[in-house]
Amino acid sequence: MISENVLKDIFKPNNLKWRTAITKVEPNRILTRGYLQEKLIGNISFAEMVYLLVKGELPSKNEAKMLESVLISFCDHGVTPPSTQAARLIASAGSPLNTCITGGLLAFGKNHAGAIEFSMEMLQEGIQRTRSDLDIDKIAQIMVAESMKNQKKIPGFGHRYHTEDPRAPRLMELAQKNKCFGRHCELALEIENILFESKDIRMNIDGANAGILSDLGFDWRLGSGIFMIGRLPGLMAHVHEEISRDPPFRKIFHNDEIYYDGEEEKL
Amino acid sequence: MISENVLKDIFKPNNLKWRTAITKVEPNRILTRGYLQEKLIGNISFAEMVYLLVKGELPSKNEAKMLESVLISFCDHGVTPPSTQAARLIASAGSPLNTCITGGLLAFGKNHAGAIEFSMEMLQEGIQRTRSDLDIDKIAQIMVAESMKNQKKIPGFGHRYHTEDPRAPRLMELAQKNKCFGRHCELALEIENILFESKDIRMNIDGANAGILSDLGFDWRLGSGIFMIGRLPGLMAHVHEEISRDPPFRKIFHNDEIYYDGEEEKL
Amino acid sequence: MISENVLKDIFKPNNLKWRTAITKVEPNRILTRGYLQEKLIGNISFAEMVYLLVKGELPSKNEAKMLESVLISFCDHGVTPPSTQAARLIASAGSPLNTCITGGLLAFGKNHAGAIEFSMEMLQEGIQRTRSDLDIDKIAQIMVAESMKNQKKIPGFGHRYHTEDPRAPRLMELAQKNKCFGRHCELALEIENILFESKDIRMNIDGANAGILSDLGFDWRLGSGIFMIGRLPGLMAHVHEEISRDPPFRKIFHNDEIYYDGEEEKL
Amino acid sequence: MISENVLKDIFKPNNLKWRTAITKVEPNRILTRGYLQEKLIGNISFAEMVYLLVKGELPSKNEAKMLESVLISFCDHGVTPPSTQAARLIASAGSPLNTCITGGLLAFGKNHAGAIEFSMEMLQEGIQRTRSDLDIDKIAQIMVAESMKNQKKIPGFGHRYHTEDPRAPRLMELAQKNKCFGRHCELALEIENILFESKDIRMNIDGANAGILSDLGFDWRLGSGIFMIGRLPGLMAHVHEEISRDPPFRKIFHNDEIYYDGEEEKL
Repeated sequence: MISENVLKDIFKPNNLKWRTAITKVEPNRILTRGYLQEKLIGNISFAEMVYLLVKGELPSKNEAKMLESVLISFCDHGVTPPSTQAARLIASAGSPLNTCITGGLLAFGKNHAGAIEFSMEMLQEGIQRTRSDLDIDKIAQIMVAESMKNQKKIPGFGHRYHTEDPRAPRLMELAQKNKCFGRHCELALEIENILFESKDIRMNIDGANAGILSDLGFDWRLGSGIFMIGRLPGLMAHVHEEISRDPPFRKIFHNDEIYYDGEEEKL
Repeated sequence: MISENVLKDIFKPNNLKWRTAITKVEPNRILTRGYLQEKLIGNISFAEMVYLLVKGELPSKNEAKMLESVLISFCDHGVTPPSTQAARLIASAGSPLNTCITGGLLAFGKNHAGAIEFSMEMLQEGIQRTRSDLDIDKIAQIMVAESMKNQKKIPGFGHRYHTEDPRAPRLMELAQKNKCFGRHCELALEIENILFESKDIRMNIDGANAGILSDLGFDWRLGSGIFMIGRLPGLMAHVHEEISRDPPFRKIFHNDEIYYDGEEEKL
Repeated sequence: MISENVLKDIFKPNNLKWRTAITKVEPNRILTRGYLQEKLIGNISFAEMVYLLVKGELPSKNEAKMLESVLISFCDHGVTPPSTQAARLIASAGSPLNTCITGGLLAFGKNHAGAIEFSMEMLQEGIQRTRSDLDIDKIAQIMVAESMKNQKKIPGFGHRYHTEDPRAPRLMELAQKNKCFGRHCELALEIENILFESKDIRMNIDGANAGILSDLGFDWRLGSGIFMIGRLPGLMAHVHEEISRDPPFRKIFHNDEIYYDGEEEKL
Repeated sequence: MISENVLKDIFKPNNLKWRTAITKVEPNRILTRGYLQEKLIGNISFAEMVYLLVKGELPSKNEAKMLESVLISFCDHGVTPPSTQAARLIASAGSPLNTCITGGLLAFGKNHAGAIEFSMEMLQEGIQRTRSDLDIDKIAQIMVAESMKNQKKIPGFGHRYHTEDPRAPRLMELAQKNKCFGRHCELALEIENILFESKDIRMNIDGANAGILSDLGFDWRLGSGIFMIGRLPGLMAHVHEEISRDPPFRKIFHNDEIYYDGEEEKL
């Protein structure tokens, strides 16, 4: 006789269901990470929501405050970054808001906005190495020496525009205040000490946030995502400003400022 | 004699400077909307930062709380939206985090996530019309009648998955509590009353947030941007889940589930 | 025993199959629009492939030549367009090739690259109106008069950089030569005649291609897509040039060329 | 009187000019890689244009034919790839054409479309190694042995859907016919011989095109760009099909096909 199992095997019902542990959607009921959304709305902060979504549980009050400060620190750097310029150029071309903002976010490459992840990865690897009996200050010395030997810049230290990035010490201060200053922040500060003495280079916003996010337990692969959350409102403000105040089709230079060094007309 | 003005005109110095009123960047000093960033970090909430960036001034405490609730309400709707599916598919293809998230945000089109702007535009136009001596309840009647006549769906009411979107009444309740319930919210509720009586249709999250954001003074052109800020953390959580738990190159159906109805081989 | 319900539940046919008439994929067999791909490769031109994919059948030889010329005409306009600038800025930020190119394509908005669709739509509507007994020259007069009355620019005529766009007459000449000059091209030329006499304005590349693509039977909704196909190689060349010859993190202006007109520090 | 400093300040030459060797734009004159565009339009093929833009000179007739075949071979693979699915999902959400297509292209990650570059890089490195006195067949053996030892898949061989990808032998045949079969193609074939004997694995489209594009002198960093040019028309056809034939907001699965394995409601 044909059993249920035999039949199931013959007809192989669609088993390609999409699996998720983030949100359960049922008619009139939306459960996120174990909480009904209507109970989250109005009762937690945005930073708590970010933490809950990504890590699956609510942070402590101190952690939430710390993450909020990190998000805010990423808010805007004027019209200097390629991402902001790209977003505004796309806006001046007449594209919809989401297109302009995403165009800006696509410029988060390894030379811009990439430092947060590189710095987190470096600090997390550094702390891994302390397991083998080395102190944090010793690790810092080894890491700086290695990077100097390879003539590589240490991500999270030094800044294109600032010799003293005003955001970094403020973030370190808040890490202490919110009791979120752990071994990754300590390592970052040790590195700064060495770099400042030897090369007059200070920690920047990425180095500070790399330490803090690592101490908050964030995987370094999520670093640029946290940056994106923090910067999106700034990009939106810039797109809105471009549309509201500037004529369409921004010309970023006169035609005679373009230098053509290709071939002249071939006959 | 050659005067300064004559010379200036001849050499026409580069006057294509990029103008912005959002952030001033100087060495070691970053001023956003009149506030040094190190004074904002740790002292205001993320919602206050969003408001400050976009509108140029800080909100009241009640407005800040309200905007925070709005942002949180957009957090996630599981794997049902095209944006989330697109982001996860792109992640399964092995693209970087920012690429996956932006791919998702590109799916904020007129059929998905567009309702917030359509609803804001409609409510703001409705309130404009009250200037000509009509009461809000009368305007609501006219608007519903017009859309019924044109057989058009009213944006912000009814939901694909929910007959009673649990987020909408919670948001309305918070609007009252935070004293952000103004004429746009009133109009949204009047429309709901008519639609519920005649068609058993209720306000959804977009209708509620459209009323609230309009009462907070947001231009309807920024509606989808607010949605993007709120949803980005959810998209990031989904991309992270995809990469952490699922094999690469997600197959959303078996090959034999594709139905080809094109031409067979031409000889 | 297996009841009807048990069977139904097991067998529940998945009716969400994805339907397509473009390509049938079977093991070791790929059939596109009725042709085995290995028979297309090496036997047709790229323009024929574009036509086949989009319209479902191969073009005539003349149509294929014409479409190829249209694609080539979109190739590049140096570093003047926002799309090219955005692509290069994103490249200078260190993003992957596909990200840079897509960032550029996102700048195809209504003020840049949008004219091809607006022009196609206008010409196609114009030819629709000739059904009601009006000649093409009469239609042209009405259309120009209407746009002048509304003080609207006619899309496809006039150019930011060129008083005589050298691509337009070449394309019109090829339309004649390839016997692809139909009623839409005729209408475009009639409009040019009126605009040139009254305002010294000539047809640009978009007006020419709008006429040609319309006479080739392309839906105006596909205009910017044809532009994208033609421009992608140019964007790729620019991204490659940026990466090969320029330092990372392009600065498009000095810091002192940014003009901040926002609020000074609030105390 | 005008002092030296006043003059310098007025004249301050903007040295941030944007340099390019691709296209020179002057009023009514557009020169690309040394050719007036109106002389290119109608006189060269699309593949020749791609080659000219990227490499700065026109290819031979055989090279042009070969590149055209490569472009066509990338045209479409039905609705199976994540890129096509993402593009169609974004289209079903009601986004504009360029947004849908770019969303698709963002899915060109390391697990999908990435193989062409990995394969080109591998073949180009392999041929570099032949300089040190090793024959191609010996290099092939070493490369396969290395990858087996590291349990890594060799990019460009084997296919998710096809045991014999019908495009690969056709491309190899055309490489011979067009005299574009050089040392990289030879290496690819040697690798196939070893893999086929030992593991019954054959060359796929990426392996074939990797050999051909390398023999045509393309930098492996451009591999995915060539793929993008070839695939864009296919993505456009799919977006157009989605919009023309399918209802908005595609649901790729029933709600009960989603498997939630997260936390249940917390009390």
